[in-house]
Amino acid sequence: MTLTNATGNASYTEKVQSVKSRLEASIPSSLRLPSSILGNLPLDVTGIPESCGLLTSSELAITELDATTICQKIASGDLTAVDAVSAFGKRAAIAHQLTACLTDYFLDEGIAQARELDEYYKREGRVVGPLHGLPISIKDHIPIKGRWASGGFLSNLELSKEDCDMTSILRRLGAVFYVKTNQPQGIMTLECNSFYGRTLNPHNSNLSSGGSSGGEGALIAMKGSCIGVGTDVGGSIRGPSANCGIYGIRPTSLTMPIHNYVWYQPGQDGIYVSTGPMCRSAQDMTTFLHALSGSKPYLIDPTLIPISFDLPDLSQRKLRVGVMMHDQSVLPHPPMLRAMQLAKEKLDAAPNIEVVEYQPYNHALGYALAHEMYMEDGGKTYRKMLKDGGEDILPLGEWVISEHLVKDHDAIGMWQLHDKRDSFRREYSDHWNKIGCDVVLCPPFLGTASRHDTAKYWSYTAIWNLLDYPGAVFPSGLAADPSIDVLPSSFTPMSEKDAESHQLYAEDPQLFKGAPVSLQLVAKRFNDGLLLAAQKVVEEIIRG
Amino acid sequence: MTLTNATGNASYTEKVQSVKSRLEASIPSSLRLPSSILGNLPLDVTGIPESCGLLTSSELAITELDATTICQKIASGDLTAVDAVSAFGKRAAIAHQLTACLTDYFLDEGIAQARELDEYYKREGRVVGPLHGLPISIKDHIPIKGRWASGGFLSNLELSKEDCDMTSILRRLGAVFYVKTNQPQGIMTLECNSFYGRTLNPHNSNLSSGGSSGGEGALIAMKGSCIGVGTDVGGSIRGPSANCGIYGIRPTSLTMPIHNYVWYQPGQDGIYVSTGPMCRSAQDMTTFLHALSGSKPYLIDPTLIPISFDLPDLSQRKLRVGVMMHDQSVLPHPPMLRAMQLAKEKLDAAPNIEVVEYQPYNHALGYALAHEMYMEDGGKTYRKMLKDGGEDILPLGEWVISEHLVKDHDAIGMWQLHDKRDSFRREYSDHWNKIGCDVVLCPPFLGTASRHDTAKYWSYTAIWNLLDYPGAVFPSGLAADPSIDVLPSSFTPMSEKDAESHQLYAEDPQLFKGAPVSLQLVAKRFNDGLLLAAQKVVEEIIRG
Repeated sequence: MTLTNATGNASYTEKVQSVKSRLEASIPSSLRLPSSILGNLPLDVTGIPESCGLLTSSELAITELDATTICQKIASGDLTAVDAVSAFGKRAAIAHQLTACLTDYFLDEGIAQARELDEYYKREGRVVGPLHGLPISIKDHIPIKGRWASGGFLSNLELSKEDCDMTSILRRLGAVFYVKTNQPQGIMTLECNSFYGRTLNPHNSNLSSGGSSGGEGALIAMKGSCIGVGTDVGGSIRGPSANCGIYGIRPTSLTMPIHNYVWYQPGQDGIYVSTGPMCRSAQDMTTFLHALSGSKPYLIDPTLIPISFDLPDLSQRKLRVGVMMHDQSVLPHPPMLRAMQLAKEKLDAAPNIEVVEYQPYNHALGYALAHEMYMEDGGKTYRKMLKDGGEDILPLGEWVISEHLVKDHDAIGMWQLHDKRDSFRREYSDHWNKIGCDVVLCPPFLGTASRHDTAKYWSYTAIWNLLDYPGAVFPSGLAADPSIDVLPSSFTPMSEKDAESHQLYAEDPQLFKGAPVSLQLVAKRFNDGLLLAAQKVVEEIIRG
Repeated sequence: MTLTNATGNASYTEKVQSVKSRLEASIPSSLRLPSSILGNLPLDVTGIPESCGLLTSSELAITELDATTICQKIASGDLTAVDAVSAFGKRAAIAHQLTACLTDYFLDEGIAQARELDEYYKREGRVVGPLHGLPISIKDHIPIKGRWASGGFLSNLELSKEDCDMTSILRRLGAVFYVKTNQPQGIMTLECNSFYGRTLNPHNSNLSSGGSSGGEGALIAMKGSCIGVGTDVGGSIRGPSANCGIYGIRPTSLTMPIHNYVWYQPGQDGIYVSTGPMCRSAQDMTTFLHALSGSKPYLIDPTLIPISFDLPDLSQRKLRVGVMMHDQSVLPHPPMLRAMQLAKEKLDAAPNIEVVEYQPYNHALGYALAHEMYMEDGGKTYRKMLKDGGEDILPLGEWVISEHLVKDHDAIGMWQLHDKRDSFRREYSDHWNKIGCDVVLCPPFLGTASRHDTAKYWSYTAIWNLLDYPGAVFPSGLAADPSIDVLPSSFTPMSEKDAESHQLYAEDPQLFKGAPVSLQLVAKRFNDGLLLAAQKVVEEIIRG
């Protein structure tokens, strides 16, 4: 399998070399994996941090914990912030050598920050905030003062002069920063290949970590971080979370601070990016969102909407769960169908659940509208960013900006497009209301993690971006198993994309072996609290 | 004074004649004012409904009531819905003959609807909803099933096939419809002159009713309606409310249902129109907004945001009121300055108020951004709508679409414009937070109602649209009095627009005699409940 790496002209090559050297040099030699390991890697590298001998048993134990537990242990004096960030920092260095998940590594800074927090705790006998001492990994385009950030191109790589709102708030709540994580060229693909390199799936290096928050996905699955911050405008939190078998939620947009994230389309109002946590437990999604919303970010960012993330009590009523097996355009691959089927059976049998068959409402149209809104200028800005950095376009980027839906719009064209969006949202909401479910369970992607450079169908996540319905991804507990995940002998594709998708699995089912199979739960706009509560109920049934 | 009326080609003229005849014919002959009155009108026509002899004392008494009282009386059985709508309907017919405020008159339909409500009340012993039997007037572009609606042009005049969300919800809450009201060409001026005619200011026919919801302003001031629904993207609720001496509030946008209002820029996301009540008491603003928000319109309209309109308790703390005497570009006329000065003095003396001098933050830039966003296509659609109806452009429409700020944008141009908007909002919010006030008291316009065809400065209202800060207008209790409202002997204009504004007053102060002087109170985005509560406190002090 030959993979395309990011390339460019001479100036690009020189600059990238220096960028990579800077990153390389930041990893201490004491944490370098020996060539005996690096020269002989298994497809699944998740066991290496434990087996490589570079981490103490105490560090291994700390990195097994989720964010909520880390916070609790630090708050109760059972763990120091320095020990927490040191353990995750060391493991992150190992994770990076195995998956290329990082773009910036500054453990010293993290330890210094943690030391101050420990001193505060010792002196004052209390925490500075709900995230006191919690190490948090941050996606590359989210600025941290004094660290590198880019908007997905070499041309907008910069040292950040200030924290953005997100990192400023997290810092105030007590979080500790120590790494930044990889994202793809243009931050607009469901894989993760940039001038920093290609982030591999820790469970199976033949597969993508997913994108665009692929660095987070791989790092957290490697337990080099317990929680990180991603962004999602088409599946960029949920895709890599699904691919890497972790948890991730895309909240309703404009509820969490995104001010000053590095981006090349500021002022684009067609479809909003949202930001949220990627983590290793369901509870961590709630912990993060409650800490953030508790800080009232709308008081400093007038674009944000003050909604409640409180979890409703679901113990006294039946939860109505719509189950959508497929989107009527592209049938998911056998591992995903098996997981969905099993989930449905368990939900059917649960006394506290009312299962409803959920028929999707014209997802093909919604997805087309989303794609058209991703590049309302016909990709002109994207190409300019490449040109400014002497950067060649990568295959998935070329696909994103060259799809037949992408065109340059004038004002009237944009109004018409946004009006179609609004009409679709209305029709969709009517449809959902008619079915009357609380949440919908559906695949987060057409299968498990994709083979590299093939993730060209975003509809399973992007439809919810278009609608701005919050969505959470979580592990089904299953993994792809080619011996039972067999394609049916006959197959009539529902669409051209369905035929392509079928082929992706048919040509080599073995390729996906061991890949985690994840599920997605979705609620209506602003029902983030309901989604968080329902996800716990649904996961307990499915995995219980 | 020669005024420009709406004109057009032969086809236009023919169609308008039929439209006007339809409207004319709908006013019953029993409600026609005699030529002895019509031929000899005073400048102030507000006394004519009472003096003309066409209304009974009971009808006059009913039309003195505000909406909240009407609802209470109907709910307690002290008034019937039929009597309520009959009284307001009769008075509306008179108001129309004096001010040209209506576009559709269908009292029979209103009485039939009211009769059903009375029967329900008699049968069930309870009301159908919080607005049971309340007659509500509706601005022309807000569809009511089976009635005429237009988007401000002859070319988009149509019989509405369905209620829009707003009228459907109001109907469900018990409201009764009987009239629709005039708005200007294109619904984009702060005056009210359309193919239906020019709506005059009831207090002084030399002055404009204001716009765009000018029909509502004049009708409610004439007590032909106790409450009506307007829309506001630059001052269109607050302007006519101020001009006509009534109450009006522009809530934060996307909180009240605007789905399917007739509009020629659907999908325009740069600056949102908002919809809200115009009425004759402060309490009526709360009554209306609570009834609407209680219906949870966001459940049917996915573009709406579920925020609370609950009024905070202000009795236990000092209210911090910023006072902004002028916007640093255009000094208000003497009557407005007098009202602002008096208000400030009273607030200064109030024990429960902390007055802060509020320095505006670059309102000129904010207003310029708003104006640019009103016509992002350079006015192409506006001109096309005119052309399609054979309609000539009116002077204020020509000014709106020909201002130097109006240009045709491409996608990148629109992103840049919206990004400037977002930056401005952020800077403004920082500025407001630094000053730290709850609300700001400011003029709603550069003076009282304007002389016809001169309202070319919207900044006092439009700045709050750009920021999306809710604003309420209410009467100061004062009226323009040229004998005391005298210009200073020397004047150095702050800007070209200031010089123009000065001239508008200087050339004939007598013209404004008797015009009501109104004030505006503004709160930050989503602080609509605080605004409603603060407005009551502030008004009580100012007028107490």
